[in-house]
Amino acid sequence: MKKVFLEKAERFLPEIKSTTLRPLPKKAVLNKGDSIVIDLGNHYVGYFSFVMKKVTEYIDAPARLVIRFCEVERELDDDYEDYNGWLSASWLQEEVVNVDFPGRFKLPRRYAARYIRITVKYTPRPLELSSFMFKAVSSADMSALIPAQISDPLMKRIDAVAVNTLKNCMQRIFEDGPKRDRRLWIGDLRLEALANYYTFNNYDIVKRCLYLFAATDRNSYGFMPGFLYEYPKYESGSWYLEDYSLLYVCSLCDYLEHSGDIDTFRDLFATAKSIVDAAISTLDADGFMTTPADGDAFIDWCPGLEKMTALHGVYLYTLDLWCKALMAAGMTDILPYYVEKIAEGRANAILKLYDSEKKAFINSRDNYQYSVHATAWMILGGVLNEDEGREVILSALNSHDSVKPFTPYMHHYALAALARVGLIDEVEKYIGNIWGGMIALGADTFFEAYVPFDPDFSPYDDRKVNSMCHAWSCTPTYFIRKYKIGK
Amino acid sequence: MKKVFLEKAERFLPEIKSTTLRPLPKKAVLNKGDSIVIDLGNHYVGYFSFVMKKVTEYIDAPARLVIRFCEVERELDDDYEDYNGWLSASWLQEEVVNVDFPGRFKLPRRYAARYIRITVKYTPRPLELSSFMFKAVSSADMSALIPAQISDPLMKRIDAVAVNTLKNCMQRIFEDGPKRDRRLWIGDLRLEALANYYTFNNYDIVKRCLYLFAATDRNSYGFMPGFLYEYPKYESGSWYLEDYSLLYVCSLCDYLEHSGDIDTFRDLFATAKSIVDAAISTLDADGFMTTPADGDAFIDWCPGLEKMTALHGVYLYTLDLWCKALMAAGMTDILPYYVEKIAEGRANAILKLYDSEKKAFINSRDNYQYSVHATAWMILGGVLNEDEGREVILSALNSHDSVKPFTPYMHHYALAALARVGLIDEVEKYIGNIWGGMIALGADTFFEAYVPFDPDFSPYDDRKVNSMCHAWSCTPTYFIRKYKIGK
Repeated sequence: MKKVFLEKAERFLPEIKSTTLRPLPKKAVLNKGDSIVIDLGNHYVGYFSFVMKKVTEYIDAPARLVIRFCEVERELDDDYEDYNGWLSASWLQEEVVNVDFPGRFKLPRRYAARYIRITVKYTPRPLELSSFMFKAVSSADMSALIPAQISDPLMKRIDAVAVNTLKNCMQRIFEDGPKRDRRLWIGDLRLEALANYYTFNNYDIVKRCLYLFAATDRNSYGFMPGFLYEYPKYESGSWYLEDYSLLYVCSLCDYLEHSGDIDTFRDLFATAKSIVDAAISTLDADGFMTTPADGDAFIDWCPGLEKMTALHGVYLYTLDLWCKALMAAGMTDILPYYVEKIAEGRANAILKLYDSEKKAFINSRDNYQYSVHATAWMILGGVLNEDEGREVILSALNSHDSVKPFTPYMHHYALAALARVGLIDEVEKYIGNIWGGMIALGADTFFEAYVPFDPDFSPYDDRKVNSMCHAWSCTPTYFIRKYKIGK
Repeated sequence: MKKVFLEKAERFLPEIKSTTLRPLPKKAVLNKGDSIVIDLGNHYVGYFSFVMKKVTEYIDAPARLVIRFCEVERELDDDYEDYNGWLSASWLQEEVVNVDFPGRFKLPRRYAARYIRITVKYTPRPLELSSFMFKAVSSADMSALIPAQISDPLMKRIDAVAVNTLKNCMQRIFEDGPKRDRRLWIGDLRLEALANYYTFNNYDIVKRCLYLFAATDRNSYGFMPGFLYEYPKYESGSWYLEDYSLLYVCSLCDYLEHSGDIDTFRDLFATAKSIVDAAISTLDADGFMTTPADGDAFIDWCPGLEKMTALHGVYLYTLDLWCKALMAAGMTDILPYYVEKIAEGRANAILKLYDSEKKAFINSRDNYQYSVHATAWMILGGVLNEDEGREVILSALNSHDSVKPFTPYMHHYALAALARVGLIDEVEKYIGNIWGGMIALGADTFFEAYVPFDPDFSPYDDRKVNSMCHAWSCTPTYFIRKYKIGK
């Protein structure tokens, strides 16, 4: 099957469109030690080239240039030598190049950048750099962007930046971030696909990604890896994530809902069913999912987070979408079994994870940690009715004691929980706070991590490696357009 | 005329032949901070590639590698950060590359190297490097190498290393050095051409270089620049050298002598004549060449050298070859004029630059500096008869007070002077001392500069930038083969 899935994935390889930017400045004369900053005017993903010429005499030695690509302006001043994050420093976008001859010099790699700084490390004589070109690439077709009527200026700006974020992550696949990882992750895939249905509405790239995941290896329980590599050679990931595997099922159900493409759903049905059944097979005596030795759950980059309750919410949420998809596909024979599982799971949640006096969920049976994460996922899992859900999610969000999301990824599910209980005004306020906060920092694209009280927060212990254009941060456009926010 | 000369030069562009080396080691597993040294087994010029693979898990970030190309082994240990020579540090052959994907990685630039060190600066996971390939390039055809019967082991080895030096400098042009400059210089051209006549005997590349110089700009007196650039675009050099201009004339005369190609001589006759006449036009009241403000003379990299006498020797030597060429080409009408100039020049030298008691030449009228340089050039200029010449050159070479050559380029002309007065045994001894000294240091090619008492000597104030495969050092093969030394 793996081969068949991969062949189908190739059929849906999107066309990469390119736009050539010819940014200012027109030219610069530089000597040893000099540098120049080129501002592309917006965040783009692509390829950079320039022309080097002599000024007076021929440059009789190679010019050694240090070229740094920055997604945001503050990265221009970062010292890369003192980087001490736990991801490889090779993600820092900086090249040392030797330019042997006058003429156009093209860097072969792809970068994500708004600002480009060129520093002349060595040159024997002044040189002129000119004709800067940035070939921006994306598989998003801007001419196909669905128009949206948004009158509120902040929401309008947030929508535009969200669309730019999505566009720059849409390449051969839905990448998580074009600066770093550049990989297909289920968590990003689902959110990109949701944003895509309301913007570019490109079904092919969604199908491609769904088929690519169908071809992955599975762990001992039948869960998928959270990510995969597709270029230059397909390679299944190695970090098996239960919540992400379930969100793969959600992504397929979303796709069916938006496209109505029952054929693709049937083609991937067995893959999705095996994951739902794998989740059920891990349930313990209390009816909660367990994590095998070779498995894990993500939920958020929030340090020290207990994930049991949130994972149970993902499970119930998935079952809900799964049952709706089975209905839509007319596969009603197996429906009652899953409907029963939902009822059981919700009852267990109320019984063992909910404090009805405090109106609060605990994060796990063994730990009284209180969080937005568990709360949002319980609401998305349909554990509470709408009235009680409103009270509970607002308490968690407003409490000083609750653990808050650290990533726009988890913020999305908090927003989804607010929307689920009808709090659309709160959705707008929340978007204004979080994504508006990034706009206030000058964002052209939305960041991988944004913690209002800690602007240097990094999941990797060093902000410098953070991705400042990250797919999972693009969903304000989904909420704004779906719920006509700021209209 | 410039365009016509350049068009002719292009006709003689030699074919670049390549040989693919697959050096040991077969493969290496490296982690962050590890390095590997690849020994090509000999000095080559060309292009390097390798295959990067995962060891266990996919390398989920680019690998940042520092790749250093060393002509000699000691360069492996050099600290390039403390380089303080006056040539651009960009000549130091080191690259920082980011390898994004598994598979073959080709460095686009050309290097001169025997040793290649790869250091893994950053990698998130162990990686395997394998299938190292070095595509060695040269326009020298090794299958056309004229065989030489040399029984003395040292002379045999020196001949082989000299041929390797010439081969690695023979590319689209006669380069001065494949590591640094990679440019056509008249001083190197003449010596490479001489060595070439006794080894590969490729006339086309000589013609190409002669035409390229014919197309250069001239200074206020009509002298040529010492060098030019020919790739990717022709560009005349800017350092006008009187001795080098005269040696251009010598190179054309040598070419006629060896090839018998009178057509090419006639085609370049006006160019050569204009230089000879330019030299004559600078003669002062004493009959010695003067140097205009936009001119200079090279002679040697020897610090503080007075060059007047040596330049006068170059002038007389050139007139001698010029007259012989005019004879051979049947251009006897203008011959008497130049013959008379030789006689005048020699007489002036004896009268004003020679101390017949001490049997020594002074370096200039104003300075009693004593040197091998002035002595050798006076002998090559035919100022003394053979017997007196022998005594004078041996005294200069053996004196503790004389300034000695610092480069194999000037050593060549000292050897030529010894040969001119019939001291072939001394030629052999001298080659054994100087070039044998480099062989004792493990040379696979001969160095740009070699000073036996100062192994760190550099014309550029830092040995690290020295070229260790330099065209002007290849002429032992010329002497060994021409005079059947070590047979």
